[in-house]
Amino acid sequence: MFNGENEPLAAQTNPFLQRYTPPTIDGNFTGKHIITVDQFERKDLQILFDAATSIRKRIRQSDRGLTEVCDGKVMASLFFEASTRTDMSFQAAMRRLGGEVIAASNGVQFSSVYKGENLADTVRAAGCYADVIVLRHPQLGSSYEAAYYIDKLNQRIKNPSVIISGGDGIGEHPTQALLDMYTIYDQKKGFDGLTITMVGDLRNGRTVHSLAKLTALYEPHGMRLCFVSPQSLKMPSSTITLLTSKGITVFETSDLLEVLGQSDVIYWTRVQEERFENPTDYAAIKDDFIMTPSVMAHARPDAILMHPLPRKNEMGTRDDHDILDEDPRAVYFEQMENGMFIRMALLAKVLRGVYV
Amino acid sequence: MFNGENEPLAAQTNPFLQRYTPPTIDGNFTGKHIITVDQFERKDLQILFDAATSIRKRIRQSDRGLTEVCDGKVMASLFFEASTRTDMSFQAAMRRLGGEVIAASNGVQFSSVYKGENLADTVRAAGCYADVIVLRHPQLGSSYEAAYYIDKLNQRIKNPSVIISGGDGIGEHPTQALLDMYTIYDQKKGFDGLTITMVGDLRNGRTVHSLAKLTALYEPHGMRLCFVSPQSLKMPSSTITLLTSKGITVFETSDLLEVLGQSDVIYWTRVQEERFENPTDYAAIKDDFIMTPSVMAHARPDAILMHPLPRKNEMGTRDDHDILDEDPRAVYFEQMENGMFIRMALLAKVLRGVYV
Amino acid sequence: MFNGENEPLAAQTNPFLQRYTPPTIDGNFTGKHIITVDQFERKDLQILFDAATSIRKRIRQSDRGLTEVCDGKVMASLFFEASTRTDMSFQAAMRRLGGEVIAASNGVQFSSVYKGENLADTVRAAGCYADVIVLRHPQLGSSYEAAYYIDKLNQRIKNPSVIISGGDGIGEHPTQALLDMYTIYDQKKGFDGLTITMVGDLRNGRTVHSLAKLTALYEPHGMRLCFVSPQSLKMPSSTITLLTSKGITVFETSDLLEVLGQSDVIYWTRVQEERFENPTDYAAIKDDFIMTPSVMAHARPDAILMHPLPRKNEMGTRDDHDILDEDPRAVYFEQMENGMFIRMALLAKVLRGVYV
Repeated sequence: MFNGENEPLAAQTNPFLQRYTPPTIDGNFTGKHIITVDQFERKDLQILFDAATSIRKRIRQSDRGLTEVCDGKVMASLFFEASTRTDMSFQAAMRRLGGEVIAASNGVQFSSVYKGENLADTVRAAGCYADVIVLRHPQLGSSYEAAYYIDKLNQRIKNPSVIISGGDGIGEHPTQALLDMYTIYDQKKGFDGLTITMVGDLRNGRTVHSLAKLTALYEPHGMRLCFVSPQSLKMPSSTITLLTSKGITVFETSDLLEVLGQSDVIYWTRVQEERFENPTDYAAIKDDFIMTPSVMAHARPDAILMHPLPRKNEMGTRDDHDILDEDPRAVYFEQMENGMFIRMALLAKVLRGVYV
Repeated sequence: MFNGENEPLAAQTNPFLQRYTPPTIDGNFTGKHIITVDQFERKDLQILFDAATSIRKRIRQSDRGLTEVCDGKVMASLFFEASTRTDMSFQAAMRRLGGEVIAASNGVQFSSVYKGENLADTVRAAGCYADVIVLRHPQLGSSYEAAYYIDKLNQRIKNPSVIISGGDGIGEHPTQALLDMYTIYDQKKGFDGLTITMVGDLRNGRTVHSLAKLTALYEPHGMRLCFVSPQSLKMPSSTITLLTSKGITVFETSDLLEVLGQSDVIYWTRVQEERFENPTDYAAIKDDFIMTPSVMAHARPDAILMHPLPRKNEMGTRDDHDILDEDPRAVYFEQMENGMFIRMALLAKVLRGVYV
Repeated sequence: MFNGENEPLAAQTNPFLQRYTPPTIDGNFTGKHIITVDQFERKDLQILFDAATSIRKRIRQSDRGLTEVCDGKVMASLFFEASTRTDMSFQAAMRRLGGEVIAASNGVQFSSVYKGENLADTVRAAGCYADVIVLRHPQLGSSYEAAYYIDKLNQRIKNPSVIISGGDGIGEHPTQALLDMYTIYDQKKGFDGLTITMVGDLRNGRTVHSLAKLTALYEPHGMRLCFVSPQSLKMPSSTITLLTSKGITVFETSDLLEVLGQSDVIYWTRVQEERFENPTDYAAIKDDFIMTPSVMAHARPDAILMHPLPRKNEMGTRDDHDILDEDPRAVYFEQMENGMFIRMALLAKVLRGVYV
């Protein structure tokens, strides 16, 4: 359950993680696969954030010009596992830009894959028909594999396409990290001096890893990251090293109350029972990782509470939800809506390179 | 199986039926959730019917102006149970108005709900991305619950949304009732003096309850409603009381031939074997509730035969279908097509308030 | 396993194969169901091929005028079995022409069919809402049945619709045959004098039957067709007779190397183990029906290798795939992309009759 390096449970074994290197963005998104937050620098984030803010404003104004941005372009939605928010927000994003969406009518898991087709062939089928493929797949490195084969395909066919990862197993979920960063940026008007507290299974949590990496890339001044987790589910030491090398102060604890009162941002995630070999170990800590209105009472009046959703019992009962949801500090619905704006910005940049 | 009040089998227990009150339409549909036929008055029906007739004419003329009505708007299709006609006609309706449609690529039942997310959270996810949500859910009152939470969400996010019920369990299916009413209106040029006969399981049948309510709301002069059902599956007495209070003559029987020859409208539905505790009770009556060409021979030459579809054996064999389908009095295909026109009218009114 | 006539295993028993006769195209596609390659003559193929080539050029030029071709039209996607390529390419085709696509949100196999509705009723539901229905169904003759009932429906409703078959069981898959023909035409600039070699289960293979028929319809000069299959899976003798009557030279063998070196086109398909009663019979021949880089080494430098995809082990291992995919003679990805162009041409012709 615990090892010296504190790395996530699954070994990173997909050979395409070595064989394929995603391109850096470096200010130009056009035609580039979006696979990992490592492709981004601070300036690239700023470009996206500005575009998302502009798009949000134009939607509120019912600006119909938006629907010309991706007019004539087609997005294929390849979801090998369910993810309502990522799936529906990408679809809405593409359609609000005037683009079209295709998907296997009966769900891709029942399609050719079911007949034994491998990922490389299924992705290339989508690549023949679409301009951009959003890929969600349970296997680590699947987005690297997809990008590798699409690059080869693009040399053969008339109409090239590009991959955007919608999450690959325990690997990364780059657009989730981007929308999380944007929500903090939007709510707090920047990152300098912020205390951001991440809570839950920090060892295996894909979203907290990517978000931590992005804060490092942003190179904020005076930022403090607090990691609250059970002892056996601490943030990987490689991430801690990265963060401290960028001048970010890191504080680790298993006691939320040590840091809750000083946090500007509280990023809540689930601790799954399945991660514990011993049920009594889980039982011993689980109540410390449930956010309820009485816990939130200890937070600052100007703090924000984030969550990637969906949530189960890590926010208590349905009644607890109803109370928390009314708290103006709970911004997870705004966060969810921002997911659409960030994905619109990304699709516009990748497909057209336009300044929206 | 039978009680004094003759109410439907499932008790109406969803607390949101009390907690949420749908707004009356009162001539203005814009931004209003559509949950129950109780929101409508006669004038609201007339507005819809006029719009549906106008839309139907414009489609026949290939009027491309229609595709500007909902341009830039997004509908989320949340179908927690299958309903081909409601699902596909809403999609076609939105698209023919120039709007876009999103849905969980692999079907919402495999999505976050499968991971244990509750309805309130899933609906709010859709609400963040879409302008209108069509919700079909097996649980009574689910559309009330959805509307309740969407109202709360709309106070938080930039882009508000609205719920249209596509049927909630044994509760209501308001757009089915509207398209049924429109079909009678369209075929018979009004309701005054009509004899409408509803046949089947009138105790549990959602469509006949809503249709009966709507005829009462329309307050027609000299209308007669005939209810033909097995003794144990009679129309709820509360509905009977409502109808007679509006001056509608009601006649109940278990013998179709008593009323078939005087009926202007014959609305046929299925009697399900599962509703009977005793198989011999079902066997005793089932043949009285099968519409075949030889039964239809007793109907008036200007009668119309309606059915909400799908049909199983309540219209006999495939050969019986083929003969009935050729009968000009069988208007269930026209009824089905009207479903699209009524839903276009409703989407246009709710999203834009435009007079189409 | 083998009979005198060498006909496919399933007897052709669907009564609608007799009851419905698809219309010949005869230069005019507008409003005609597309059910079988027998509807086509050489001139009809040429019209489609010219349109596909024009469309391909316009897509490469990002010609936005394309999206006006099917503006305001709706395609219903009814896939009763999975077929990623056919499904997604039809969707992309319709959308790139500016048309809209509807489908049962949860997959049609979970929809009304699941509730016991028959095909005739489900197809007519789609027909009420859509202008064109793409039907994929596992049962032989299902597309004939669909066309039969849609013709009856069209006499009743305001907005008529048309069926395009996406494959009906062991029957036909006409658009696959059209895209295969187009790929040969495009790669080889015609058919005269070509040696085309088809490999695999030629007895049950739907795609090779239809492709063989189309080459006969094209009436090329000096064409030679080589059929390579296990003895028990030979091309039906009726097809052989048709071909020779059109002056095409036919050569049958179970030894690929007899013909590989003279082939201009190599059309590869799978031999399924299930087709053999005796596992040792399959084991005895299976290695002769695997295309690998070392087999391809015997082919001509200007040959092309085609495959309808998906592929399993009939092209060896993943490593074999990677090598074959780099071979410029392997055109199955171009073939797959052509599927979209041919389907765009067909939709444009059937819905609007326009010369694209």
